[in-house]
Amino acid sequence: MILELADLRIHPGQNAAFDEAIALGLRDVIAHAKGCKGFKVNKGVESPERYVLQIFWETLENHTVDFRQSEAFTQWRGIVGPFFAAPPVVEHFELVVKST
Amino acid sequence: MILELADLRIHPGQNAAFDEAIALGLRDVIAHAKGCKGFKVNKGVESPERYVLQIFWETLENHTVDFRQSEAFTQWRGIVGPFFAAPPVVEHFELVVKST
Repeated sequence: MILELADLRIHPGQNAAFDEAIALGLRDVIAHAKGCKGFKVNKGVESPERYVLQIFWETLENHTVDFRQSEAFTQWRGIVGPFFAAPPVVEHFELVVKST
Repeated sequence: MILELADLRIHPGQNAAFDEAIALGLRDVIAHAKGCKGFKVNKGVESPERYVLQIFWETLENHTVDFRQSEAFTQWRGIVGPFFAAPPVVEHFELVVKST
């Protein structure tokens, strides 16, 4: 299992609309992508324009190849992209430890 | 519920020792802190010196006041601090949406 962590910055004052848009994009697009095992979005307390998106993929290539080269990527970016104030900062992670 | 997200950078080549140290610190110190509801640590695929620590707190003050002003904070920093190559970047987040 691979965690994609995307650090997102949106334009000020668009939180309510972005909350709806990203929920829709995740449910209608990401959830159906090959190898997608789940997702989570959090928004900043100190930085209300900052969002952290976590998507769990079966393999790294499910994200970097299968998803990014699919039509679904264009659809997804069409839904959330207009809100972005800066390019998303995306990296992948492996689990080290978690509480039970 | 509040998510604390800490972006950590450690000195190169210390991954195995840090993996052990942070697991110990979380289990022996953080897990017993007032309001701590759970934790998770991930390490970078593209950036092996990057770790993302997530701690779930009942309230923001359980972290910023209760924990940071406790002896446990000193203990925790004693365990993980020596590995840090830069000061941790810490912010707090609320849940927007997650998959079921």
